[in-house]
Amino acid sequence: MTFHISIDPVSRTAARDARTRIDQLTKPLGSLGRIEELAERLASIAGGIPSSNYEQRTVLIGAGDHGVTEERVSAYPSEVTGQMILGFLAETAAISAFGRAVRAEVYVANFGVKGDVADAPRLFNTPVVRGTRNFAREAALDAREVDALLESGSSTFRALYAERPMDVIAIGEMGIGNTTSAAAVICALSGEAAEDVVGRGTGIDDETLRRKIVAVECGVKRCKSADWHSVAEEVGGAEIVGLAGVMLAAAAARIPIVLDGFIVAASALLAVRIAPALGDYLIASHRSRELGHAVALRHLGLVPLFDLDLRLGEGSGAALALPLIEAAARMIREMKTFAEAGVSTADTDLALHS
Amino acid sequence: MTFHISIDPVSRTAARDARTRIDQLTKPLGSLGRIEELAERLASIAGGIPSSNYEQRTVLIGAGDHGVTEERVSAYPSEVTGQMILGFLAETAAISAFGRAVRAEVYVANFGVKGDVADAPRLFNTPVVRGTRNFAREAALDAREVDALLESGSSTFRALYAERPMDVIAIGEMGIGNTTSAAAVICALSGEAAEDVVGRGTGIDDETLRRKIVAVECGVKRCKSADWHSVAEEVGGAEIVGLAGVMLAAAAARIPIVLDGFIVAASALLAVRIAPALGDYLIASHRSRELGHAVALRHLGLVPLFDLDLRLGEGSGAALALPLIEAAARMIREMKTFAEAGVSTADTDLALHS
Repeated sequence: MTFHISIDPVSRTAARDARTRIDQLTKPLGSLGRIEELAERLASIAGGIPSSNYEQRTVLIGAGDHGVTEERVSAYPSEVTGQMILGFLAETAAISAFGRAVRAEVYVANFGVKGDVADAPRLFNTPVVRGTRNFAREAALDAREVDALLESGSSTFRALYAERPMDVIAIGEMGIGNTTSAAAVICALSGEAAEDVVGRGTGIDDETLRRKIVAVECGVKRCKSADWHSVAEEVGGAEIVGLAGVMLAAAAARIPIVLDGFIVAASALLAVRIAPALGDYLIASHRSRELGHAVALRHLGLVPLFDLDLRLGEGSGAALALPLIEAAARMIREMKTFAEAGVSTADTDLALHS
Repeated sequence: MTFHISIDPVSRTAARDARTRIDQLTKPLGSLGRIEELAERLASIAGGIPSSNYEQRTVLIGAGDHGVTEERVSAYPSEVTGQMILGFLAETAAISAFGRAVRAEVYVANFGVKGDVADAPRLFNTPVVRGTRNFAREAALDAREVDALLESGSSTFRALYAERPMDVIAIGEMGIGNTTSAAAVICALSGEAAEDVVGRGTGIDDETLRRKIVAVECGVKRCKSADWHSVAEEVGGAEIVGLAGVMLAAAAARIPIVLDGFIVAASALLAVRIAPALGDYLIASHRSRELGHAVALRHLGLVPLFDLDLRLGEGSGAALALPLIEAAARMIREMKTFAEAGVSTADTDLALHS
């Protein structure tokens, strides 16, 4: 493989300094829970108290089609991938509504959609493949395609960053069949069994679920699990590999990365295998209803911020986490300490409100 | 009692119409989980598809002091209540940072702070009492004070609404000692035992916790639990009763009400006892770490949107829910249906992304 990227470790010192300041702010110790943890993580990535409120926020949706749909693992035809992209670009999809709600700009990267997608603003349209091959029967991608997808992902991030400098990136995906590819990637990289990872998606019946598990097992069997490149070739999806490249480039630019659901978690697992330092740049937004998402998050060592029973994809859950990131940044940047505010402190660290 | 307010029932028809539209939007059925439920509730309150995105949002913090602090149930002196109000008005507190993060205006209502609070913009400063009496020994409020607090709360809402028309209100509180009063109100109204409701606040020691439980039991013993007025008199807090008045007036104006944590839940329980129709106007933001919050939410029939390990108060959790409300409104108002968008549907309701 030729792909290489260098990611700085995050700053443990900055995280400790952030914690010291957080503990002096006018509130009981630890009383903002997960928001305090988030502020520590932001500081560790920024290398100090963050210099912004993370208001420049971008959602990037990676898209691709999956040959494994030949196994009838999805109820929707592959054409829907392209149709949904039109919805993203026309700003009428769920992520469009959510993006406006959280003041984020939504971009799409076509890493491997089967059909033609017309050029449009906010679309990166240089697909590496036209759908993957059916991984239940053969390798989904070849070695050169995997490298090209990682390159395409990282150059997409750099082009996006040049067009629209951002403080934080939220990662989403679209691709009919991609829960099947994601499940295979997670199984192959983690060693977990297919029946513990393959989910009902949005409610497939028992027969379809059985076909999906068999397809995943067929693909995973061919993977060398210690070799991420082999996993990406055998069972990868174009958007799963492409988004790994996006994340690696974002971390190299020291930008916090907000993960959406199951498919993006598979992509993150792959990216962390490529460059373990990436792991500290990741923020898990929600826990989706998809069975294997919790498994993947455990392997990533991430605890999601919320659980809203989402299972849509498109970056919808990641978008909803963006205001929490702004809240965490504003907490540490804008709140006064007890000393600064002249508020009486307790003799002990007992309750402010109790 | 003299206090009376009339609240319309929410519209079940509007909720059903909202569900019909949600199920036709370009996403798999049910795939936006709790956000879909939220949209249904907003529609039921609005009496149809909401006509706004709930961008005019106000946080109102009710404040009061509690005589029960004489029982040494809090580590902080009562002066901190007034000092924290100065922080809210100076915009340096946690809710100030969170309010900016979610584009909400923060107001304070002094319902019963012990010390003097100087007049300021964004402060409603007509306290009904100067701290309650110690409910472990005697009634916290008298009948006239309870009525005056409910009137003050509802007139505060109306004045606020006249000054700044809003689409949604988030309710917060500040008051040293108020977890003790809130626990007593919840126990008295619900019949739950003190040890199942009284919490460690922000980490009080075993001895303080025992004192707190004894204080709550002393007060609750005197309450007639079927009589909300008796409960409010015996163990009420000025902000707990005042905020009940705020909520009742907000519901009368058909404004959705976002609850913060434990103390606000006590206030909501009281308000629902006064006017049961209020219950359908409430949205629970988070589940706090305070032991009795889950108990109170169960009695309110509410499931919180998230659980971020918050236990600060001030409306901090309620503020963080406001972008989710905007997301829900934008989903139902701005997303296209499959038919409108020309996206292929599946033969069955199987997975869009699977």
